Amino acid sequence: MNDSKDTDVSENKPDIEELAEKAINYISERKYSELKLFLVDMNPADIAELMEELPERNLPIVFRILPKELASEVFVHIEGDTREVLIASFSDKELKEVFDELYLDDTVDIIEEMPASVVKRILKHAAPDMREEINKLLNYPKDSAGSIMTPEYVDLKKDLTVEESFRRIRRTALDKETIYTCYVRDDNRKLIGLVTVKELLVADYHDKISDIMETNVISVRTTDDREEVANMFSKYDFLAMPVVDNENRLVGIVTFDDIMDVMQDEVTEDIEKMAAISPTDKPYTRMNPLELWKKRIPWLLLLMISATFTGMIITSFEEALAKFVILTSFIPMLMDTGGNSGSQASVTVIRSLSLNDIEFSDLPKVVWKEIRVALLCGSTLATANFLKLLTIDRMILGHSEITVQVAFVVCITLVATVVCAKVIGCSLPIIAQKIGFDPAVMASPFITTLVDAVSLVIYFRIATILLHI
Amino acid sequence: MNDSKDTDVSENKPDIEELAEKAINYISERKYSELKLFLVDMNPADIAELMEELPERNLPIVFRILPKELASEVFVHIEGDTREVLIASFSDKELKEVFDELYLDDTVDIIEEMPASVVKRILKHAAPDMREEINKLLNYPKDSAGSIMTPEYVDLKKDLTVEESFRRIRRTALDKETIYTCYVRDDNRKLIGLVTVKELLVADYHDKISDIMETNVISVRTTDDREEVANMFSKYDFLAMPVVDNENRLVGIVTFDDIMDVMQDEVTEDIEKMAAISPTDKPYTRMNPLELWKKRIPWLLLLMISATFTGMIITSFEEALAKFVILTSFIPMLMDTGGNSGSQASVTVIRSLSLNDIEFSDLPKVVWKEIRVALLCGSTLATANFLKLLTIDRMILGHSEITVQVAFVVCITLVATVVCAKVIGCSLPIIAQKIGFDPAVMASPFITTLVDAVSLVIYFRIATILLHI
Repeated sequence: MNDSKDTDVSENKPDIEELAEKAINYISERKYSELKLFLVDMNPADIAELMEELPERNLPIVFRILPKELASEVFVHIEGDTREVLIASFSDKELKEVFDELYLDDTVDIIEEMPASVVKRILKHAAPDMREEINKLLNYPKDSAGSIMTPEYVDLKKDLTVEESFRRIRRTALDKETIYTCYVRDDNRKLIGLVTVKELLVADYHDKISDIMETNVISVRTTDDREEVANMFSKYDFLAMPVVDNENRLVGIVTFDDIMDVMQDEVTEDIEKMAAISPTDKPYTRMNPLELWKKRIPWLLLLMISATFTGMIITSFEEALAKFVILTSFIPMLMDTGGNSGSQASVTVIRSLSLNDIEFSDLPKVVWKEIRVALLCGSTLATANFLKLLTIDRMILGHSEITVQVAFVVCITLVATVVCAKVIGCSLPIIAQKIGFDPAVMASPFITTLVDAVSLVIYFRIATILLHI
Repeated sequence: MNDSKDTDVSENKPDIEELAEKAINYISERKYSELKLFLVDMNPADIAELMEELPERNLPIVFRILPKELASEVFVHIEGDTREVLIASFSDKELKEVFDELYLDDTVDIIEEMPASVVKRILKHAAPDMREEINKLLNYPKDSAGSIMTPEYVDLKKDLTVEESFRRIRRTALDKETIYTCYVRDDNRKLIGLVTVKELLVADYHDKISDIMETNVISVRTTDDREEVANMFSKYDFLAMPVVDNENRLVGIVTFDDIMDVMQDEVTEDIEKMAAISPTDKPYTRMNPLELWKKRIPWLLLLMISATFTGMIITSFEEALAKFVILTSFIPMLMDTGGNSGSQASVTVIRSLSLNDIEFSDLPKVVWKEIRVALLCGSTLATANFLKLLTIDRMILGHSEITVQVAFVVCITLVATVVCAKVIGCSLPIIAQKIGFDPAVMASPFITTLVDAVSLVIYFRIATILLHI
């Protein structure tokens, strides 16, 4: 597809590794002015990616070559480890310069990732008013709207004209990350309206802000969960979301670029929890085996202990199994099918919960739906299995111990297991959320362990009754 | 938290159910002008949500009360089923009016969801040039950048001044969804640059576009996968992404609101695949049991058949099991721990692949990391288990058949199983992606089934050797 390899402006994706090699060549040949020309033409996100490919000792050179503003943009996109290397190489003056150029929400994001000693150094060299702002933002609870907002937004007075507003926007635009939504506050700093640059552009120059502003403003509170904020972004298609304190005073905005990161982080967290991993902010490639072990072992231990109970169920039916040894061979199939059926239901429900598609009051509806799905799935599986047992296994492979009764036991168990699995799978996440637990934890591993035990009990009960053991 | 219940402008989230009740009251009392005043003050996304709560027969009334432009915005946010009800109630004139107000990418999204008869009716009443555009967009492959783009963007000529540009933007702004990034094309319609409204605002009125435009433009092709486009959005923090054809001619843009939807859809798809469900665009609440069955049964059948092989492994070691019946009771624990360890690795790797955090060349590094994690996890689990077997099970519960040898067999199997599970779990998704399969399919259920078989073979091999069966 990417057949046009000319260096046309719109060559789709830059090949970062190729570009990094080029940069390394420039450095080794000390062609610094060529390197600069080569770099300033790139997107900051790409320069950051390129720098990840360079040897550590080259990082400070490359960074110092960049014009100040671009350097700061690159600094935002770079990964934590590389960022630490850079900060260590900065003089105090350089440190101040880089951070002065940053938007406040980016500064806070970066500081939250840094070790305490680096944070101290950054705060020491920040201007006093900036330090105060940073500290304020750092104090909001992790994962709250306050912790991801920026206090840098465009505010307008309601009695300004459109022309005056443009003048104000133009004057302050460079310091703001997002200027396309402007907020109107009253004298008590309460949020009373908003107006977009698009609306300003189509309005008459002499219109008053109070006449064209939208007064039905949707906002979040500083303490709201960032996942909730992300859901509101995708519902309302906002470029920025105003954040108010408990007295409805506007204290900042959350911008859409941060929300895209939040969306990805939250999803990764959910997926990790669903796979019985304690969630983390660090990407996989940056975790060492010990860190990964710490995230995974608690759940493995817990689930292993739970699974021993399943073993105890088998032990208690030892005698029955000794009489019909063939019953043992169906255990994996029954357990796996139960686990898979349960996790299909639980994962579907967990995802619907996090998209606000269902809520607690839907529980009866969901359970009833899953019972019907389970009966459909269970009877399909049972029929397929029954035919397979009596034709392939009994007739072709000659397993004479698989009688019609045994096949019945296995197939009835299948249906019952699938129904139990789906009911457990769909209801546990909803109940978990209701009582304040994270529904994502109620996914495959947990459900599987539970369903294993349930399916074995069902299996042995049905077997003892139908086979008169 | 939401303690201020006054109807202040920034009351955080509107309570839709409460508002819907109010609307129903207005309707039953035929207070239509009050209803209108009440609705026009709401956000279109909220009106859409409110309409979902209304009885079907009330939908047309509410919709007709809304001013035309607002009605179209509501129409975009409404869910498919409700939309069909509305369209069925529209006269041809109304249908045309609603669709005339829509942005083209929204029109196409809506049309893609509708049954053929409705699509025919919509296209029949569209203006000829619009019909042509719609058909063009409908022809791009599903999930491609072309299928989610809109041809409505602001284009500027490179020799315009900033002042002239503003005049052009102002004139055309109302018809465009996103005006904040303007694109510059040469005479061959090739994309040669872009300029943001923010840059225009801070520039001098007499500057030429060619002097201030960014020439290093990142773009995607019409045929690029929409997931790839979403990844580029979150990397570059764009508000809109230009889409070019094979000759680098600008044909449209993808806007960030569509990308947020894409991100959520892709994640839902991945999560569904990981749970052995065929992905679907329809939300869970809108699927009936038969549709859900269709999405779930193929995988359940496939996995059930695979699990019967695991059963065959047990059968082939029947004799050994008959001698040491206690070995049977550890089967669920070993299988579950293997499955959980494997899915931890596979899910982590699948997520890293979809975030472009790892690629095929990282395979050896990933496998080596997982081996070390597996040895750590495996030995922890084995130690815990060994102690439990010899203290709780043997000494306290008096299971004299659990000898030190048996405990050894179980614990060595544990370590070996965890190592195999993690290696299989981390490598299969990477290999799958390399050979063009979807890595998400290589998640828990698939890995579990495979690891079950592997762990049983390991178990019985070690048992026959160490216990001299």
